[in-house]
Amino acid sequence: MTTPTFGDSLTALRNTAPLIHCITNYVAMNSTANLLLVTGASPAMLHATQEVSEFTALADALSVNIGTLSSPWAEAMLLAARTAHEHDTPWVLDPVAVGATRYRQTVCADLLALKPSVIRGNASEILALNGLAHQGKGVDATASTDDAITAAMALAERQQCIVAMTGERDRVTNGKAGFTINGGHSLMPRVTTLGCGLSALVAAFVAANPDEPMNASSAAVACFAAAGKRAGENAQGPGSFYVAFLDALYQLTPDELSHFAQREVSDAL
Amino acid sequence: MTTPTFGDSLTALRNTAPLIHCITNYVAMNSTANLLLVTGASPAMLHATQEVSEFTALADALSVNIGTLSSPWAEAMLLAARTAHEHDTPWVLDPVAVGATRYRQTVCADLLALKPSVIRGNASEILALNGLAHQGKGVDATASTDDAITAAMALAERQQCIVAMTGERDRVTNGKAGFTINGGHSLMPRVTTLGCGLSALVAAFVAANPDEPMNASSAAVACFAAAGKRAGENAQGPGSFYVAFLDALYQLTPDELSHFAQREVSDAL
Amino acid sequence: MTTPTFGDSLTALRNTAPLIHCITNYVAMNSTANLLLVTGASPAMLHATQEVSEFTALADALSVNIGTLSSPWAEAMLLAARTAHEHDTPWVLDPVAVGATRYRQTVCADLLALKPSVIRGNASEILALNGLAHQGKGVDATASTDDAITAAMALAERQQCIVAMTGERDRVTNGKAGFTINGGHSLMPRVTTLGCGLSALVAAFVAANPDEPMNASSAAVACFAAAGKRAGENAQGPGSFYVAFLDALYQLTPDELSHFAQREVSDAL
Repeated sequence: MTTPTFGDSLTALRNTAPLIHCITNYVAMNSTANLLLVTGASPAMLHATQEVSEFTALADALSVNIGTLSSPWAEAMLLAARTAHEHDTPWVLDPVAVGATRYRQTVCADLLALKPSVIRGNASEILALNGLAHQGKGVDATASTDDAITAAMALAERQQCIVAMTGERDRVTNGKAGFTINGGHSLMPRVTTLGCGLSALVAAFVAANPDEPMNASSAAVACFAAAGKRAGENAQGPGSFYVAFLDALYQLTPDELSHFAQREVSDAL
Repeated sequence: MTTPTFGDSLTALRNTAPLIHCITNYVAMNSTANLLLVTGASPAMLHATQEVSEFTALADALSVNIGTLSSPWAEAMLLAARTAHEHDTPWVLDPVAVGATRYRQTVCADLLALKPSVIRGNASEILALNGLAHQGKGVDATASTDDAITAAMALAERQQCIVAMTGERDRVTNGKAGFTINGGHSLMPRVTTLGCGLSALVAAFVAANPDEPMNASSAAVACFAAAGKRAGENAQGPGSFYVAFLDALYQLTPDELSHFAQREVSDAL
Repeated sequence: MTTPTFGDSLTALRNTAPLIHCITNYVAMNSTANLLLVTGASPAMLHATQEVSEFTALADALSVNIGTLSSPWAEAMLLAARTAHEHDTPWVLDPVAVGATRYRQTVCADLLALKPSVIRGNASEILALNGLAHQGKGVDATASTDDAITAAMALAERQQCIVAMTGERDRVTNGKAGFTINGGHSLMPRVTTLGCGLSALVAAFVAANPDEPMNASSAAVACFAAAGKRAGENAQGPGSFYVAFLDALYQLTPDELSHFAQREVSDAL
């Protein structure tokens, strides 16, 4: 589990083009599909209760994002996550704004019981999710980054999963060890739903590299960090940044990713 | 209430980064989120009846757009608008295609009763909404621009709100006075849902400048007009226009907005 | 029915700016609206059962895409398709992933009974739809292109409609004759929902050219092929490709389309 293998993870993704079943929010659907396609995975968005389990059973991985949650969608998420759990299909939970309302906390508690392979969120969401799983508490927006690392590790250990926490510096952990990933660009928070798309890309990397989920999740995060850095070089603002980001993910080679990882990724959390 | 203060309104928006609860149509969700983010506001899209009131109560403003209406969404819109009304939270109504079907007229009548702070629409929609509130009539697509100004003023006066009516020349009125705003670009109608995004940006400006809703609404409209003019200078078509428009909103400074307003905004309706 | 008339079909589209009622998937909504707008048609997305028939009756054509299907949407699609059928309004069916689940097969069987004017899909979808209509079978992903042509012609003949089948080489047939259309670009499959948007553009072309649906459908397909070829010339990846593609559709002249058709379109299937 060393950073130079990130390039191999990307090669595996491109060679297998895994089919990723995405149940995500309305805002993110188009950009998530594009982010998967440009990197080399195959997206599919569907959620009807009549077909969702049937399709999850065919997919190589599942990505669930609760952004624009409602009752029929929560039902679909639970059906799909249960199918993934029963088939040992990797699945990723993106707990958007879980600390904001009681409804989100309830749905996330039900989803956590179905054992996501990876949880991908920002520091506030990881703190909220850890408090939820632990004590039923909500988000603590004023908590420090150190607190978020501790929460991420606690959550990963308790859930026996990977936690990929993104922000100015990204952290990926299995509860015991992990990676810190630098890079990216200050314009990234000005483009909507990049994080949602990253959750789906994490699912794609884990599908293509099922034996090393922490490494695979970190490679996905590093792809975004590397492409973000490249895209920021000539961007005039968030509009041209997003276009360049899609191009940069498409152009990113396994060698470039491994070299980026050697410079910008450390195994200290 | 003079146009040079438009720059101050933009400064206030960027300093406060207001949280805007958007209940909008599926077509507009991604671009609305991006248009808010690039200008300096913080978007949130959610609509489940289990959480919508809880979230509106936290938000700095609400933006309701009926584009891809259906029963569960209409219920969410009414719950959110009622919460906004009860909390004195500013809220904007975007009555997409209200003249097209009876269902839209019924839902809009219910929403109007909850006293939106601002109504943002095109001339046909303002005419239809005025006819609806007044006489239960539909849209008159053949009406002249002068008729639309009269309807906009009548609607604003009766509803005791601001009406922001956009088209080749934009008009913002409180029923007694107002602004006419030039600028923009002929490619803008070739990019989908820019108007929907403007409604959310109006909500953000009013949230950041709660004491002067007409000025704030006009400043939001002028942002679009200024950024549209800039974006059109080098655009090759609607695709490159949209990218440049996002960049231009991001780059627009308060000084540039005030200078634009001095040239392109008049207080004659 | 000769390829040089494709330019005339585009002229008719731009002169009439037909109103296209789109009931499509969440992923495709924004790009479909933009693809229609840049080419010269007028999109409208709405699906509430309270208004869908009322609106279809006003529209110049209907486009139905089952991508992110669910019960309320299936109900809306059937209501709209029935209205289109009763009013002799042209309507297009895009049977996304019809072979993937039994639910899609059931809904598509119901839609086929309402006689779409055009079916637009990829080879797998056309094979699945033909098997479905014929024998109730699913998709055969391993079938050859020749098999897909035979299935397309059989489906067109049995349904008495046009089948527009897209891929590396596009084919449009009425069951007896048709066109093969080259062009496009290898980046097109890396951009999500271009095919979904094409289905709506086919509806727009048929609305503007109601007397020659096969020619009109082919002209729409040729627009995409011509604009894709142009957009690919300077694209750095899928992000810049999509931007250039929207610009190229906007800039495409009827003369350019006819000249493209002379080089890249043949009447051999």
